[in-house]
Amino acid sequence: MTQVAVHGVGTSPFGRQPERDLIDLTADAVGEALADAGDEPVDAVWVGTVFAPPGTAQRVLRALGITGIPIITVENACASGTTAFVEAHESVRTGRYGRVLALGVEQLSTAFGGAITPEPSDPEGRAGLALPALYAMAAARYLHLGLATAEQLAAVSVKNHAHALHNPRAQYAGRFSIADVLASRMIADPLTLLQCCPISDGAAAAVLAPATGGAREVGVRGLALRSGLPWNHRSPHVWGHDLVRDTAVEAFAAAGLAAATDIDVAEVHDAFTIGEIVTTEAIGLVAPGEGGKAAAAGVTALGGALPVNPSGGLLSRGHPLGATGLAQLAEITWQLRGDAGGRQVDGARIGLVETMGGGVSGLDGNACAVVVLEAP
Amino acid sequence: MTQVAVHGVGTSPFGRQPERDLIDLTADAVGEALADAGDEPVDAVWVGTVFAPPGTAQRVLRALGITGIPIITVENACASGTTAFVEAHESVRTGRYGRVLALGVEQLSTAFGGAITPEPSDPEGRAGLALPALYAMAAARYLHLGLATAEQLAAVSVKNHAHALHNPRAQYAGRFSIADVLASRMIADPLTLLQCCPISDGAAAAVLAPATGGAREVGVRGLALRSGLPWNHRSPHVWGHDLVRDTAVEAFAAAGLAAATDIDVAEVHDAFTIGEIVTTEAIGLVAPGEGGKAAAAGVTALGGALPVNPSGGLLSRGHPLGATGLAQLAEITWQLRGDAGGRQVDGARIGLVETMGGGVSGLDGNACAVVVLEAP
Repeated sequence: MTQVAVHGVGTSPFGRQPERDLIDLTADAVGEALADAGDEPVDAVWVGTVFAPPGTAQRVLRALGITGIPIITVENACASGTTAFVEAHESVRTGRYGRVLALGVEQLSTAFGGAITPEPSDPEGRAGLALPALYAMAAARYLHLGLATAEQLAAVSVKNHAHALHNPRAQYAGRFSIADVLASRMIADPLTLLQCCPISDGAAAAVLAPATGGAREVGVRGLALRSGLPWNHRSPHVWGHDLVRDTAVEAFAAAGLAAATDIDVAEVHDAFTIGEIVTTEAIGLVAPGEGGKAAAAGVTALGGALPVNPSGGLLSRGHPLGATGLAQLAEITWQLRGDAGGRQVDGARIGLVETMGGGVSGLDGNACAVVVLEAP
Repeated sequence: MTQVAVHGVGTSPFGRQPERDLIDLTADAVGEALADAGDEPVDAVWVGTVFAPPGTAQRVLRALGITGIPIITVENACASGTTAFVEAHESVRTGRYGRVLALGVEQLSTAFGGAITPEPSDPEGRAGLALPALYAMAAARYLHLGLATAEQLAAVSVKNHAHALHNPRAQYAGRFSIADVLASRMIADPLTLLQCCPISDGAAAAVLAPATGGAREVGVRGLALRSGLPWNHRSPHVWGHDLVRDTAVEAFAAAGLAAATDIDVAEVHDAFTIGEIVTTEAIGLVAPGEGGKAAAAGVTALGGALPVNPSGGLLSRGHPLGATGLAQLAEITWQLRGDAGGRQVDGARIGLVETMGGGVSGLDGNACAVVVLEAP
């Protein structure tokens, strides 16, 4: 099997951009990724999107002159972009193709008036378990069990919004206090507005090809993609925890990593503040029950022992669903090249991306992807 | 690389089934395919669908106890099911997985009141070029150039509806005359109602694994998947022709087939009667300009020299978008095993599936997949 490297990445700006269209956003991301990788043609493209109309991938790519080759749209809820990366990676690793593109693109501002509404066919969603409600249940459970405090939840928001001050492509950024976060409008108790990711538009892309030892190539050390049970009645953990844990264990084995503590920098799925706390614990970046404390103590902040979401994360960079995984991968690529500017994690050698796809109502816990990258 | 075989196939019935749901349809197809293949667990699933909500794949599969493994939804317009098959095939061919499932599922009766409407973001669709209109333009061009007559177009409908009399899973079947077809309600001039595929619900699935020489294994001899230009200004042919031709050339090379005339039986994308005519010519199953004559003369009928769409095709079996490609692959699998009952093509050794995905407005000509299968 072939060792694969990321040869180039690119993204659009993130934010509400209703005046632009999917072609504009794609052009930003793909143009930058191809230029970064050296502008050779690719053999195939995988495109992650959740709500773009059928046929979007072919339409936006042919506007950039990319046609004739296989173009395959993949959907895996919020993990769609990371799934596109996994599929692209596997095609190079197994020798199916020599050079491929993974793209994620989403324009939520024009697709929805506000938040994503559950599908009518989804009984849990009909019952009220939209995504904020589902994450709120996990947060409430953490508070009830004493695994986190409201202030620790808020600390994740404070941290990630501060990180985004150094990310010119982020949707939101700011120096908020814990009190600011707790005083923002209640969305789903105990999650306030500043603890919820925004409605975003954006695109991100990566070019993958065999590793050649180039000075700007970021190696794909290992990855895993899994689907999961919605509710695991035998697990003591909140929704999502076990799927993230199991996927990380599989990815670490593929990467030959002895421990999560070998990770220098991580981008994880903080769609809501509780998401980052549960995920850092599930992956083993922090000890069980220590995710909230780590955020509050600065352990997971830039300058801390293990920076998490230096880009600002979904909370601040934004969460254009299909694009998110590739935006995370672009961030870690920049970090491992030492190109992350004011948000650079010094000496980062091993980076991790984790993306969780929760279906429309969120109850499916339906997909998780974990990718381990290493510096050139 | 590993030689791959189809070890099992299954489908639901096809038709308007609003009283059933996506889980019911999936259970029919996957249950039959797994039982046919010997009921061993699979390592991964690719699911083709166009309009099922995000997260559907995980939801319907976990209802059957399939979870934990990678589940990847793919979309390629009407070629989504065949794309799922291509991706599943490539995963076994390249050694990524040992045994995989490809599923296609769609329930159009509950998703749309009538025909599929173009996306508002699609300028050609907004201008009126919905799919029937686009195919009607190709048909009008054929009539104008004398490449076919209205009666020859109708002959495709007569033939495929007669084939479906032998297919108990087909949505529609009947002994119509040319006059009946021409007298049915005009949908998009010159295409009448009986020349247009219906709104359908259904699912189909295939299990793929390395070939072991088993007596019921249908070998995958070669395949190709391409995207295409919407309008090729340098081509004298109607929309879609060149993409189908180029994809078939690539598939035949992969299959080591000297000529299209080596094909014994074919399932091709007859979403409208003109589609079968253009496709049989583009693939080389008949000579240029002979597609209509072949249908009228019985060459492409059961009992003719080269039976096309023995299942009844999209026109009669039905066209549940994401399921269609796998329904075609199931039909050819049954044909090559000699299990096709009253619609069996005697002595069929080499079979072909062609699926065309045309985007919502149809203008993209955006995907074509061709698969060549061979008898055990």
